[in-house]
Amino acid sequence: MTELQTLGQTVLGSQPFSQHLGAELIEFEQGRAVIALEIRPEFLQQHGFVHGGVVSYLIDNAITFAGGSVLGERVVTVEFKVNYIRPARGQRLVATATVEGAGSRLAVCRCEVVAKDGEKERRCAVGQGTIALLG
Amino acid sequence: MTELQTLGQTVLGSQPFSQHLGAELIEFEQGRAVIALEIRPEFLQQHGFVHGGVVSYLIDNAITFAGGSVLGERVVTVEFKVNYIRPARGQRLVATATVEGAGSRLAVCRCEVVAKDGEKERRCAVGQGTIALLG
Amino acid sequence: MTELQTLGQTVLGSQPFSQHLGAELIEFEQGRAVIALEIRPEFLQQHGFVHGGVVSYLIDNAITFAGGSVLGERVVTVEFKVNYIRPARGQRLVATATVEGAGSRLAVCRCEVVAKDGEKERRCAVGQGTIALLG
Amino acid sequence: MTELQTLGQTVLGSQPFSQHLGAELIEFEQGRAVIALEIRPEFLQQHGFVHGGVVSYLIDNAITFAGGSVLGERVVTVEFKVNYIRPARGQRLVATATVEGAGSRLAVCRCEVVAKDGEKERRCAVGQGTIALLG
Repeated sequence: MTELQTLGQTVLGSQPFSQHLGAELIEFEQGRAVIALEIRPEFLQQHGFVHGGVVSYLIDNAITFAGGSVLGERVVTVEFKVNYIRPARGQRLVATATVEGAGSRLAVCRCEVVAKDGEKERRCAVGQGTIALLG
Repeated sequence: MTELQTLGQTVLGSQPFSQHLGAELIEFEQGRAVIALEIRPEFLQQHGFVHGGVVSYLIDNAITFAGGSVLGERVVTVEFKVNYIRPARGQRLVATATVEGAGSRLAVCRCEVVAKDGEKERRCAVGQGTIALLG
Repeated sequence: MTELQTLGQTVLGSQPFSQHLGAELIEFEQGRAVIALEIRPEFLQQHGFVHGGVVSYLIDNAITFAGGSVLGERVVTVEFKVNYIRPARGQRLVATATVEGAGSRLAVCRCEVVAKDGEKERRCAVGQGTIALLG
Repeated sequence: MTELQTLGQTVLGSQPFSQHLGAELIEFEQGRAVIALEIRPEFLQQHGFVHGGVVSYLIDNAITFAGGSVLGERVVTVEFKVNYIRPARGQRLVATATVEGAGSRLAVCRCEVVAKDGEKERRCAVGQGTIALLG
């Protein structure tokens, strides 16, 4: 495990909401973070799909990690946008965030969320946002 | 309780994720929805503030209800954006969503989230998004 | 004219694109900027409405002025979002931007664009974005 | 030239604002559109860079073409977001838009804008938005 990955695991482990949902940081390197989540019955909305709020949580968190990998540990999400592409269902969600550009204080990140449903893997949302170094 | 409010309570009650978090639909009328959430320890991030994912869930859900109040029950969130204004902390989050414009199939909504901390009430995020009628 | 308004006129006057389009800063105070534009035939798209790019220019510029009014002169637009509500047509567009929250380096702004068509005034777009102090 | 490209040239040619700025549709196929613009002095802002409004116009237009390539000719931009990555300068801007997901009525698109400055090519903005079929 790289130093960055150890740091990432520590940060994710210290987020009660991420622990509560069961998020896992499965890849983490300079400019890229992948966070996965097993889909649980309590994550759904009224039509049996994963609630958009779960998907948007994943985007928010994945872009913060990606941004933090280039800006440093003390970062916050300034803002982000999500476009839902199709209903999310299956066993697992995987959010992959990348840094598209960064200065010393701000990083622009994108994220893609796929739902793994048996053998199928479908893109269910894309996001884009800004991460800032604190202070 | 109006017919719309009864419908709204039924829809919220049938969203497992909203029930899991404890969301309450406290106001609901044509073009406007207010959803509140008691802050629980498991909603926090590593600095002791409410995780952005909880705030973005609230925006997503509140704008869907607002949009649904003018478009009809069978709606989905197409997309939304959130700008975080300050860390959310305290006892309670309240998200107020309004319809800013609507056609027969799409509604544009805005949302404001305030955190109630003792006597203080602070705006912690604003959002904007699109709701669509299904089918 | 206040000192801020004089500064605002100078900044707008030094933007070739704003001069080219004919933008006017018609109100400017701490936390609020209003920019107007007479609609010209060359601003239209193929259906005879104002091109979205003209509306998005207005939002971008109006939020930069609003953000600059609280952060200082040396600001840039980090990002923004626009939702188009209805086709823009008529004689004049007016974009009103307000600061919804600000720290020392970043300001969150919203903007509303109305089209004035004879006696009618219709909201045609809403925007939301982030302004940052440079350096 | 494909039938789609002929249609695309006709649509772009019938947009007065695009003609006024000098936009060229340089690639157009199912799910992808590339629009270029020679940078003119009147496109700049007060620091000598291309005004964000020009960049956002390009994103708006490029995603509309990309969305139209899968949804049909009668489309509008519902909304989009832009994140500016670095100041745009040089001779030419090129916006490449792709469809990331589409149903029968809505398409989610992304766009990247690069500035060509002599031999250098730099990404200056990324965008994401929704295109809808009219009616």
